[in-house]
Amino acid sequence: MNLDRFSVNQMTVKQLALPELIAHCVRLGIPGVGLWRAPVQEYGIEAAASLVRDAGLAVTTLCRGGFFTSDGWEEDNRAAIDEAVTLGTDTLVLVSGGLTPACPDLLSARARIAEAIGELTPYAGEHGIRLAIEPLHPMYASDRCAVSTLDQALEIAERFPADQVGVTVDTYHLWWDDRAPAAVERAGAQGRIHSFQLADWTTPLPAGVLNGRGQLGEGCIDLRAWADLVEKAGYTGPVEVELFNDELWARDGVEVLEETLERFLAV
Amino acid sequence: MNLDRFSVNQMTVKQLALPELIAHCVRLGIPGVGLWRAPVQEYGIEAAASLVRDAGLAVTTLCRGGFFTSDGWEEDNRAAIDEAVTLGTDTLVLVSGGLTPACPDLLSARARIAEAIGELTPYAGEHGIRLAIEPLHPMYASDRCAVSTLDQALEIAERFPADQVGVTVDTYHLWWDDRAPAAVERAGAQGRIHSFQLADWTTPLPAGVLNGRGQLGEGCIDLRAWADLVEKAGYTGPVEVELFNDELWARDGVEVLEETLERFLAV
Repeated sequence: MNLDRFSVNQMTVKQLALPELIAHCVRLGIPGVGLWRAPVQEYGIEAAASLVRDAGLAVTTLCRGGFFTSDGWEEDNRAAIDEAVTLGTDTLVLVSGGLTPACPDLLSARARIAEAIGELTPYAGEHGIRLAIEPLHPMYASDRCAVSTLDQALEIAERFPADQVGVTVDTYHLWWDDRAPAAVERAGAQGRIHSFQLADWTTPLPAGVLNGRGQLGEGCIDLRAWADLVEKAGYTGPVEVELFNDELWARDGVEVLEETLERFLAV
Repeated sequence: MNLDRFSVNQMTVKQLALPELIAHCVRLGIPGVGLWRAPVQEYGIEAAASLVRDAGLAVTTLCRGGFFTSDGWEEDNRAAIDEAVTLGTDTLVLVSGGLTPACPDLLSARARIAEAIGELTPYAGEHGIRLAIEPLHPMYASDRCAVSTLDQALEIAERFPADQVGVTVDTYHLWWDDRAPAAVERAGAQGRIHSFQLADWTTPLPAGVLNGRGQLGEGCIDLRAWADLVEKAGYTGPVEVELFNDELWARDGVEVLEETLERFLAV
């Protein structure tokens, strides 16, 4: 894929401080970054915004809003929208939340999620922020995200205008699903692909299954086929590489950034 | 659920030697066991068969055949069928296999699996053994089983007579899937539910994600709803409890067996 589509998600090289990350992106000609709320908050939202803006980088997404099945979701998500505005991105990625005492099963959790997104959409719309519901792999259904398939994400998104609520297509979460290609096509036709993220699938999975997302080319996903699929569906925006991986985090961040860029160009 | 439906899969209490397991099943009035090939082979197939037969226990399934994407599958699966006959069960559970150099993607793997089952069916039929394709959770799609949903399992099973090829419905693997209830109904209407297994879903998942299946009642699955669903679909056979769980294996086997029985009766 071409360099001009590349965006590196901050979590891929979380060992790099934001100024370092930005400087190396500029040096390597990387045009975009995806940011995470916690490290950006730690650095200072305004300061981070200046840093990225002065470097001429695009902020492709802010990750993440969501967790709608927990108390306090509304205040937290409004804050996320405010932060997205300050950082200059138009897209907030939503990890919707899992089962909680208030939503003890998947049906009630998804109903709650749809309802919450409905309540959040006007505020997001007023601020020019698109919400991108991210289906997470079914192994996270109970504790992180009751939205497991792109069909389920679309079923919620379709209740709202496409420029307000769309989806995040992440290969790591969707690669196994034989129904995902048709859903990608449908999402694209509706203009609802608001973010496209790449990560590869490798095994064995680590304990907790959070930090084992494979470097591009290390796993079994046909990333080129996914890129073609998403492109054919009409998506021509940035392609974020978002890897949560203890082994990558233990390495030199600049080396991992350069490797990730090489792997991206080779897809 | 009633005691007369209960079957304990040998792996749930793998710390118990077969004679111990059988003796405690008899003492507790447990009418059936599901057996695994490796420990039964170690004990001796004929000896295991006598032991179970003399105790008056039903062998509800033999686990497992499959791994059709690897070399040597045919010989291995014929042996599994022979062992099933000797042990006196009519059902061989199939874990179909994941990605291999010969089947590097899910589509080719599932095509290979369907083809292999077609080649195996005559031999199984001649020996009175039903094949029960088990969809495994998508987190196993790459390394253990490219058949991830009940729909996919049925799509293969439906190419063959229902009394020869059916499916295994296991709550642990299917609970997350909003399409599974309709598939259970379809499988039941066709007489293709050849095995029904219970395990609960608990997090965090352990490294490798193999041995974290929750004791009944410890997790988030509405097991009663699943039992009702399968029953409404027309299945009235044995209900196996199959737990792979390092914590349960570290405990006294008899205590775990008694606890599992209690939990089953409470569902």
